[in-house]
Amino acid sequence: YAPTRCAAAQTSTEQGVLPPCHHHEAVHDPQLVPCTCPLFSCPWEGHLEVVVSHLRQTHRINILQGAEIVFLATDMHLPAPTDWIIMHSCLGHQFLLVLRKQEKYEGHPQFFATMMLIGTPTQADNFTYRLELNRNQRRLKWEATPRSVLECVDSVISDGDCLVLNTSLAQLFSDNGSLAIGIAITTSKVHNVEAEI
Amino acid sequence: YAPTRCAAAQTSTEQGVLPPCHHHEAVHDPQLVPCTCPLFSCPWEGHLEVVVSHLRQTHRINILQGAEIVFLATDMHLPAPTDWIIMHSCLGHQFLLVLRKQEKYEGHPQFFATMMLIGTPTQADNFTYRLELNRNQRRLKWEATPRSVLECVDSVISDGDCLVLNTSLAQLFSDNGSLAIGIAITTSKVHNVEAEI
Repeated sequence: YAPTRCAAAQTSTEQGVLPPCHHHEAVHDPQLVPCTCPLFSCPWEGHLEVVVSHLRQTHRINILQGAEIVFLATDMHLPAPTDWIIMHSCLGHQFLLVLRKQEKYEGHPQFFATMMLIGTPTQADNFTYRLELNRNQRRLKWEATPRSVLECVDSVISDGDCLVLNTSLAQLFSDNGSLAIGIAITTSKVHNVEAEI
Repeated sequence: YAPTRCAAAQTSTEQGVLPPCHHHEAVHDPQLVPCTCPLFSCPWEGHLEVVVSHLRQTHRINILQGAEIVFLATDMHLPAPTDWIIMHSCLGHQFLLVLRKQEKYEGHPQFFATMMLIGTPTQADNFTYRLELNRNQRRLKWEATPRSVLECVDSVISDGDCLVLNTSLAQLFSDNGSLAIGIAITTSKVHNVEAEI
């Protein structure tokens, strides 16, 4: 488990994409994106369309199929920083789940989980993802719009705009050191969501 | 906003109640519970049946009625420690919602929300409460069994066995400094919950 790296890409402003991470400015062709896998410092770059095959072939990241899946993250006790990654194929698109154990406050590791679309921010706005933990008579659900892998997974997590778990909650939801995360993707119905509460 | 105090009571072991907080050992009659309001250091003690009227009359804590309610916590910017309290009357019982802003890690206030039944732990086991935040295309739901006010709200929160929000998430879910928390109580169906994920 190497330290994580930024997954963002330098893209042209015409595409309306968020600014890239400062430490990753070497992509000269706006059509190319770097490897989006935060597990390794990978020099690869390529078009968005071939990111999935790169992640599968080079980084051996699995793809789970289906509208609702369960991702089992094992060895939750591993020291921070550690990432768990899975791809999720659904509704004609591929999504990247990143679960990160990180010490924002020294000595107090937390878990952060978010979902990125392997696509543009405009495409990402069409979806809603749900992460669900369910164990020991407790249930925690997080729903949000996925970010695009063209954005920076590091900043999503450092902003805390994702599912956040402290260690004690992670233990309550874990079974024998493994955390089962229920994942569902739907096409977003933004206007209905606000009205429901 | 005075510093919070422990809401637990010294109770007889015959009742199978959890141990009390160490700093609150002055209740000699096992039938008496201290004031469960964590807002004030209140010398009152009385039977469980009269806790609600004490909270209403002495501490002016409002009761909201109905299976599903929305509690609006205002002035979320107030410095930690701060508590927001409301009673919720539902299914023939009264519940106490405690929302606490606290600095577990210095300089990093977090929000903790939990629901306590104004009743015994055995009664509490019959219910499930749900807290829901819903704004800015994000939704966060927490479901759990309420604790009894005979247990210690401080330890529930220090264990982190509750809804936990960092400051940035609290801001995303807030509107003009106020946080709307959807609250629902149901009779618990423990065996079904585990099977659903």
